[in-house]
Amino acid sequence: MVDAVKVGFVGLGNMGAGMAANLVEAGHDVAAYNRSQHKVAVLVQKGARAARTVAEASGGDVVITMLADDAAVEAVTFGVDGIIASLPSGATHVSSSTISVALAERLTDAHAAAGQRFVAAPVFGRPEAAAAAKLFVVAAGEPAAVQALSPVFDAIGQRTFVVGDDPKAASLVKLSGNFLIASVIESLGEAMALVEKAGVDKQEYVELLTSTLFNAPVYKTYGGLMAREEFEPAGFAATLGLKDVRLALAAGESLQVPLPVASLIRDRFLTLLANGGAHLDWSALGKVATWEAGGQKGGGSWGSGGGGVGGK
Amino acid sequence: MVDAVKVGFVGLGNMGAGMAANLVEAGHDVAAYNRSQHKVAVLVQKGARAARTVAEASGGDVVITMLADDAAVEAVTFGVDGIIASLPSGATHVSSSTISVALAERLTDAHAAAGQRFVAAPVFGRPEAAAAAKLFVVAAGEPAAVQALSPVFDAIGQRTFVVGDDPKAASLVKLSGNFLIASVIESLGEAMALVEKAGVDKQEYVELLTSTLFNAPVYKTYGGLMAREEFEPAGFAATLGLKDVRLALAAGESLQVPLPVASLIRDRFLTLLANGGAHLDWSALGKVATWEAGGQKGGGSWGSGGGGVGGK
Amino acid sequence: MVDAVKVGFVGLGNMGAGMAANLVEAGHDVAAYNRSQHKVAVLVQKGARAARTVAEASGGDVVITMLADDAAVEAVTFGVDGIIASLPSGATHVSSSTISVALAERLTDAHAAAGQRFVAAPVFGRPEAAAAAKLFVVAAGEPAAVQALSPVFDAIGQRTFVVGDDPKAASLVKLSGNFLIASVIESLGEAMALVEKAGVDKQEYVELLTSTLFNAPVYKTYGGLMAREEFEPAGFAATLGLKDVRLALAAGESLQVPLPVASLIRDRFLTLLANGGAHLDWSALGKVATWEAGGQKGGGSWGSGGGGVGGK
Amino acid sequence: MVDAVKVGFVGLGNMGAGMAANLVEAGHDVAAYNRSQHKVAVLVQKGARAARTVAEASGGDVVITMLADDAAVEAVTFGVDGIIASLPSGATHVSSSTISVALAERLTDAHAAAGQRFVAAPVFGRPEAAAAAKLFVVAAGEPAAVQALSPVFDAIGQRTFVVGDDPKAASLVKLSGNFLIASVIESLGEAMALVEKAGVDKQEYVELLTSTLFNAPVYKTYGGLMAREEFEPAGFAATLGLKDVRLALAAGESLQVPLPVASLIRDRFLTLLANGGAHLDWSALGKVATWEAGGQKGGGSWGSGGGGVGGK
Repeated sequence: MVDAVKVGFVGLGNMGAGMAANLVEAGHDVAAYNRSQHKVAVLVQKGARAARTVAEASGGDVVITMLADDAAVEAVTFGVDGIIASLPSGATHVSSSTISVALAERLTDAHAAAGQRFVAAPVFGRPEAAAAAKLFVVAAGEPAAVQALSPVFDAIGQRTFVVGDDPKAASLVKLSGNFLIASVIESLGEAMALVEKAGVDKQEYVELLTSTLFNAPVYKTYGGLMAREEFEPAGFAATLGLKDVRLALAAGESLQVPLPVASLIRDRFLTLLANGGAHLDWSALGKVATWEAGGQKGGGSWGSGGGGVGGK
Repeated sequence: MVDAVKVGFVGLGNMGAGMAANLVEAGHDVAAYNRSQHKVAVLVQKGARAARTVAEASGGDVVITMLADDAAVEAVTFGVDGIIASLPSGATHVSSSTISVALAERLTDAHAAAGQRFVAAPVFGRPEAAAAAKLFVVAAGEPAAVQALSPVFDAIGQRTFVVGDDPKAASLVKLSGNFLIASVIESLGEAMALVEKAGVDKQEYVELLTSTLFNAPVYKTYGGLMAREEFEPAGFAATLGLKDVRLALAAGESLQVPLPVASLIRDRFLTLLANGGAHLDWSALGKVATWEAGGQKGGGSWGSGGGGVGGK
Repeated sequence: MVDAVKVGFVGLGNMGAGMAANLVEAGHDVAAYNRSQHKVAVLVQKGARAARTVAEASGGDVVITMLADDAAVEAVTFGVDGIIASLPSGATHVSSSTISVALAERLTDAHAAAGQRFVAAPVFGRPEAAAAAKLFVVAAGEPAAVQALSPVFDAIGQRTFVVGDDPKAASLVKLSGNFLIASVIESLGEAMALVEKAGVDKQEYVELLTSTLFNAPVYKTYGGLMAREEFEPAGFAATLGLKDVRLALAAGESLQVPLPVASLIRDRFLTLLANGGAHLDWSALGKVATWEAGGQKGGGSWGSGGGGVGGK
Repeated sequence: MVDAVKVGFVGLGNMGAGMAANLVEAGHDVAAYNRSQHKVAVLVQKGARAARTVAEASGGDVVITMLADDAAVEAVTFGVDGIIASLPSGATHVSSSTISVALAERLTDAHAAAGQRFVAAPVFGRPEAAAAAKLFVVAAGEPAAVQALSPVFDAIGQRTFVVGDDPKAASLVKLSGNFLIASVIESLGEAMALVEKAGVDKQEYVELLTSTLFNAPVYKTYGGLMAREEFEPAGFAATLGLKDVRLALAAGESLQVPLPVASLIRDRFLTLLANGGAHLDWSALGKVATWEAGGQKGGGSWGSGGGGVGGK
C-alpha cells in the first residue's frame, strides 16, 4: 500500500478522465479541474474533490496537466492564477500530454525559477488503455522528482520508462513515437495501394502481414482501420497527427537532425487536409497513396468529400 | 499422412537447404540440385536423390526454384536443358525466391505455352525459420495447381496465404513486405538519430518501443541490430535490400502507383553503398540518418569505413 | 568550305527530318532512311539519296541515329542487317537521340569490337531549333572521331560541347539536362500552386519571374505553358519525360549517386499518368501540386480527365 | 520630376544602405535610422537626415523597414516607441525585407487598426543591384497606397510588380522566389554530383548549361559558385536560406499546399548545418549531393570542416 499523494488533475478529456479516475481508485487525494465543470462532477462521484480553478488544483504535491496542445498548457501554467503562481515551492508539475520540445524547455526553466519541479511524463495508449490503467508512461526530469512520482505513475500505467533527467527528452521520445506510428500508416498505405491495384484483397493482405512479421498492435489497429476504410469517427484526428509530426520536425530542426520520412508525412497530411480530410482519423493518411495511384479523391468512407473542394 | 510428391529442388543456399531437408523429412521424394555439388551431398545423406543437372531435377510433379535473383531463375528456366524444356506436361514450377513482377509474368506465360503450370510461392522468414519449417508461404497461381501443392507448402512452412490466381500477385506481396521492413528500418533510423542527439540511450529506446506499441518481430530484430550497430556479418546484405526496393518500385511504375517512401529508401541505400556499406546488413540503412545529423560517415561497426571512399 | 562527308541518317521524326535536311543543305552526301518511307521522299526532294534499308544508310563515313528510345536504337544497330554488320571498318556511328548510359556503354564496346567508332552526340533543342540548325550538340567519344565530325555537327547545331572521350558522358549530360528541365517544371508547379491559392494570377507571376532572375528559355517556355494550362498537343509527352528521368535515376544508381529530386519527379510523373495525363506535355507535371492542394484532378485543359479513372 | 516624399528608412545593412542612398539621390527627404549609428553618418553625408530613434524616422509620409528577420521588424514596429505608435494617421509602413506571411497579416491588421496603411514590398536582387537602383520590387497592398509609392519604388528599382491588394501576397511571392532559387541550387547540385562522378568537368558543365537552355542569372550565379566551390564569404548564408524555405513551408501549411521540393531542401539545409556549413553561402547546399555520393563531408573550400563535427 502506497502513501496517498495530493494530486491536482487539470484536463478531463478522453484520456484525462480515465487517468484521474485511476488515481482516485488507487487511493490518492485528487482535486480535479476541467474547463467544462460537468466533467468534474463525474470524477467527484468517484471520490475526487472538485477544483473550480486551476489554482485550486495546484495546491498539493503534484499537479498533472493532460491537455490538447501547447497553447492549452501555456494557458493554465502562466498568468496570474496559473500553476506557476499557485504551486507550492518544491511541488511538481507533471505534463502528460504531448507537448513541443520547446515548451518542455520553457516549463523546465520557469518552474525552476519559481522553486518548483517540472517532470514531462507523456503517455502511450488510447482512451481505453487510459481507462484500464494500462498506459505506458515515458518520464524525464530530476531523478528525485521522478522517483517520488512512482505511486502516481503506477496508478495510471502498466509500466514507466525513465528516459533521462531533462524533461524535454520525454517529450521528444513521445513525439518520435507518434512519428513512427505515422510512418507505419504511410508505408502501409503505399503498400496497400500497390497490392490492391494488382487485385489483392486489402483485408486479407493486412491479415497476412499481422499474422507474420508485423504482428504488433500498431499494424493491427491501423492496418485494420485502413483495410476497412473506417476513418470516422476519428480516434485521433488528422489535424492532431499533422501537429505531432510538425512538432517532431521542429525538434529535428532545433537539433539539426533531418527527418525525411517525417517531411514526406507532413506533406501527405497537408494533401489530406486540402482535400477535405481534416476531421478523419489520421489513418486516412494512407488514402493519399490511393488517390495518387488514380483513385477518386475524397472517396471511401467520407462521402462526396474533398474532390469538390478547391477545384479550379 | 499425405501422399508423397515427386519434387525437384533447385538452389540449396541458406534458405533452400533447410526447405529441401524439410521436404525430405516430410516423406516427399526429393531430387536436389545445386550449382556447387557438395551442398547436394548433404541433402543426399538426409534421403534426397542427387540431381546432376537442372533437367534431372525437373522430371517429377513439381520443381521448386530458390535462387538469388531474376537472372539465376532465368538461367535455370530457359534454354536448352532448362526447366521449361524438361518439365513434363501438367507439372508445376514453383518459384519460392523473391523475383520481379515482370519475371513472374514472363514465367506464367512461358509455362502456359509449354503446357505446364507456374505458381509463385515466395516465403517470409530467415534461414532459421526455413530450417525449422516455420516459414510463411505466400502463394498465387491457378487454384487447382496451388491446391495440389498443399503437402509441399505444409512441409516447409507454418502457414500458407493464397493471394490470388495470378502468380505475380504473390511476387508483389513479397516485394511489398520487404519494402515495409525497409521502411521500418528507415523510420527507426531517423527516430534514433533524433533521440540519440538529445541524449537518450538507443538500446533503452528500442526496449521502450518494443515493449509497447511496436512489439513485433520486425522492430525487435532490426531495432536491436541498429541499437547495437551490429551490421556484420549481414543477415541480408544492403545490396539485396536495394534490389528488392528497386523491384517494388518497378512494380509500382508498371502499375502506376507512386511509392514515395520506397523512393526515399532507394536513395538512402545508394548513399549507404556509395559510402562503403554495400556488404553490411540492410539495417545499416538506418545509419544514414545519423550521418546526415552530423555523425562521422562510415563510423560504427565497420572500421575506417566509407569516409575515405570517393573523397574529392 | 568543308569537305563533304558521306552520311547515313536513320530516323526522320520531328527532330531528325530537320537535322538531315540541314546536312543536305550544307553540302553533305546524305543517305536517308526511315521506317515509313514517305518521310524519305521529302528528304530526297531536297537532295538526299533514299536508303531502303538501314544497311544502305550505313555504307559511308558516318551513320547518325535519331530514334525514339533505346529499343529503337538497338533494333537498327544489332542483328543481321544492322549498323554493326554494315558499317565499314573505321567509320563512325553517331547516336544523337537520348539513350541510356548502359546502352552507350554497350554501343561503345560493340563498335570497338567491330573495328568501328562510336560517338554519342545528343542534342538540346526542340523541333524548331532542329529545323533552323540551332541545336546544341553535346558530344563525347574518341578525340579523333569527334574532331572528324566537326563539319557534321556544324551543319546541324549552333554550338558543340565536347564533354569527354567516353561516349556515355554525353548521354549522361543529356539526361541530366532533361532532369534539370523536369525539376524546373516541378518546382514552378509547387510555387504556382502556392501563390495561386493566395490569389496571385499565374500568368503575371510567370511574367514577374521571367523578367527577373529566371529569364531563361526554360522558364519562359515551361512557365508559359503551365500558366496557360496549355498541355495539348504535347511538345514532349509526359511518358517521355518519365522515361528520361528513369534513365537519369538508372545512371545514378549505377554510379551510386542518389538523386532525391529526380526520385520525387518520377513519383509525380506516375501520379500524372495514373490520373489520365500520359498524353499531355510533360509540363503538366506541375498540375500535380495543384491537385494535392485541393484542386480537381484531371481538371484544366484535358476535360473530364483522370478523376474518373481508378475510383475505388 | 516627381514630388519629393518624406521617407523614413529603418535598417542600413548591405541592402538598405544602397536603397536609402538612391532615395536621397532621387530627391526624396530621407530620415535614416540604424541600430549602429555609424552607418547613419554615411547616409547623412549623402544628404539624408539622421534619425536617432525609430520614432524619429516614422514622422513622415512613409517609413520603410529593411531588416534581417521577423523578430527585427516586430521589434521596431510594436512597442512604446515603435512605428505604430509614431506613424501619422494615413501614412504608410513599407516592409521591404523578406517576412513571413503570418507577420504580413499581423502588420496589415495592426496598421489598419491604427488608421495607418501597410504595404509589403520585398525586393529581388543582391547588394550590387540595390546600390545600382536595379532591384525588382514586388508590391502588394491597398491600391491607392501602392500607387502613391511609385516615386519611392522608381528610386530603388528597375521595375515594380504589383501582385495584389493584400500585402501577404507580396511576401508569399518573395518567399516563393527564394524557394525557386534554392530548388535550382539543389537540382544543380544533384546533376553536378552525377556528371562529376562520370568524369565530366564541373565548370565546363555549368558553361554548357548556361550557354543553352539555362542562360539565366540564377544559373550563372549559383552554378558558378558551385563549380568553383566558392562558398565563403557567404553572399547569403545557409542559415538564411533555411529560414526562407521554412517560411515558405509555413505559408504552404497555412494555405494547405504541400511543397515536397521545399521539404526536401529543408532537410538538406539541416544536413549542411549539422555538418559544419551554417556559415557558408547557401549554394553550398549543392554539396550535400556530393557527400551522399561518397565525397568527403566538409570537404571543398571549408577546410577540415564538418566531418569531425558530431561524430558518434
